[in-house]
Order: sequence, then structure tokens, then C-alpha cells
Amino acid sequence: MDKSHLIWKEVDRKKVFDCRVFSVWESYCKSPVPKQNKDDPLTFSVIEARDWAIVVPVINTTEGKKFLMVWQWRHGAKDLSLEFPGGVFEPGENAEEAAARELYEETGYKPEKIKKIGEFSPNPAIMSNKVHFFLAENLTDSGKQDLDEDEFVEITLVNAEDVIQGMGKPPFIHALMGTALALYHQNG
Amino acid sequence: MDKSHLIWKEVDRKKVFDCRVFSVWESYCKSPVPKQNKDDPLTFSVIEARDWAIVVPVINTTEGKKFLMVWQWRHGAKDLSLEFPGGVFEPGENAEEAAARELYEETGYKPEKIKKIGEFSPNPAIMSNKVHFFLAENLTDSGKQDLDEDEFVEITLVNAEDVIQGMGKPPFIHALMGTALALYHQNG
Repeated sequence: MDKSHLIWKEVDRKKVFDCRVFSVWESYCKSPVPKQNKDDPLTFSVIEARDWAIVVPVINTTEGKKFLMVWQWRHGAKDLSLEFPGGVFEPGENAEEAAARELYEETGYKPEKIKKIGEFSPNPAIMSNKVHFFLAENLTDSGKQDLDEDEFVEITLVNAEDVIQGMGKPPFIHALMGTALALYHQNG
Repeated sequence: MDKSHLIWKEVDRKKVFDCRVFSVWESYCKSPVPKQNKDDPLTFSVIEARDWAIVVPVINTTEGKKFLMVWQWRHGAKDLSLEFPGGVFEPGENAEEAAARELYEETGYKPEKIKKIGEFSPNPAIMSNKVHFFLAENLTDSGKQDLDEDEFVEITLVNAEDVIQGMGKPPFIHALMGTALALYHQNG
């Protein structure tokens, strides 16, 4: 299955914007089949950011399987979002450490078992980072979150079936939580 | 379920970067609970882009259910990706028109039935746009794609089960294709 006829080659790149959360680069790439009357290399815009971790925390209750989720305000969408816990890697962390830390900070829960279930580019067309997904089980509640001063995160238990059926409609507005569910189904 | 204590209020915004595919804005927001010793409003970076459509095209064959998918190079991840067809809205298009057009341009297939199955923010933390998902059935092959000169897209039929089991591992690297699968399961 040779796909070499689809592969572009980056010949140079330049940083054109920078902020706390991401930077933007111009990537200059040669097409697989250079064409007439076309600039070559072409310019593509790429967003660089640290990797992210997302955790699906599962709790078995007498009422059935539930997910531990968090309500938070999202400044891109300007909307409330009900999500699995997660966030940005700290420098030096590996994926599992980032996942366990974010779970603890946002919810106060610590898992006995945390297992990687998949890895994606959040958007390979325009982003260069990765998002790593974990399943967390056998959770213990420490009773307190560890939030930054400007973080407002409210935890809640939601019936797994309500999340599965609710995805793609508010308050389940975060596409990467749908990705997490697809991996949950795959590993279920 | 009052969540007003989680809602931030944008007081101003300013464009700080612009390119062909997206722009970046600084959004100045007041926190739900203004705190001491903190700048208020705080600054958040938001990426604006047009909405996107993604289509899950299902084909029933004598070998079982298959998805019509596309191989393409992705300049953010600098990697090959096997994806459902999709892309950016053209000006004036609604979601269904964008979905049907992208399906046709990338694959040459036209659906008898196309049905919306969900809508998300691709990343509500840092992006303001939406991604709209569709299921396409009863497809007819026109035999030819309609690609831009710098688009290299190769179509293939993949067993549905191989896609479901393969998500989160190469070549299924695009997180939003996992999101599409979660909605496919929900509507299956």
C-alpha cells in the first residue's frame, strides 16, 4: 500500500504568532506532484501547542455505570460544556502523568487503574500536537479539587447511557469527548 | 440546574492574527467571581474559522457494511490520514450543502439520503466554530472527483468494523473521525 504519491515535503517553516496557549507557524511545503502555473512550495498555517490528555473516569454504582464529568465555561465557544476531565501536559510530564494529574486537580478523584485507550491528532489539518485518551477505574474521592484561582470547574456523575445518547447536543458540545466515547466503545 | 456561577462575560475582543484558514483573537473576559490580586478581565486566545462538515458515507456490500473514506496528507500533523470525507463551508452554504459538496468533490459519490447526526465545537476551549456531522446512505458513484489543483485525495472502501477497531491508531489519526463514529454508534 504505497502512498508516497500523497506525501508533501516541508522545506522551511517560520513562526508568525505566539501566545500562552499556542503558536502559529507558516509551513512551506513541496507538493507530491509539482504542477505548472502553481507556486511551489505552497504555504500552510500550522498551530503548535502542547499535547493534551483526556480521561474517561468510570464509576460503577447501584444505579449502573456512571461517568465522572466536569462542567466548565469554554472561552472559544463562549458556552458551558459538560466534559470528561483533561487538560494540557505540564513540561516534563508523560501522557499518563498528565492524565492522572488533570483528573485529580479537576475532580479530586484518584484512580487505582489508568489505562491508555488511544491517541489522535486533535486536528491534523491545522494542529501539530496530539491528544491522548485514558480510561480510569476504581476511583477514590479525596474530597477536594486543586484548581487554579481562575478555574471554575464543577464535578458531577452522569449516567453513561445519557452521555452516549447526549453527545453532539448541548451540554455535550466538545468534539473530543465524542472521540473519547468512540475509544470507550472500542475498549468496552 | 443553575450554572450561572460558572459563566464568564466577554467585555472586549481584538484580532491579533489572520491567515487564509483562521484568525486569532484576544478575548477579554470577566470571571464569574472576581478575585483579589488578579487581573480582571483576563485575556484568552480564541481561534476563529469557518464551520466544517464531516460525512460518514455507509455502503452495504456483500462483504458487509463499509465506509467510504479518503487518504490525504495533513500539514498540521505532517502525516497521512485515513478519514471520512469533509471540509470547510463555502460562503453562503448551509451545513447539509457543505457536507454533500465535500462528499462529492473528494469522492465523486452522491447520496440519495444525507442526515445530520450531531454538532460539536471542534475545540470549545480555543475555537469558536462548529463541526457538523452527517450520515450518507444509498450512494451513487459518478466516477470522478472534483479536486483543487493542490488537493491529493485517494478514495477507498474500508470495513466498518476495521474503522471502529482502528480508531486512535494510525492511519486513523484524526480525532474528529472518532467523534463521527461516536455519533454513528448513537444513530446505528
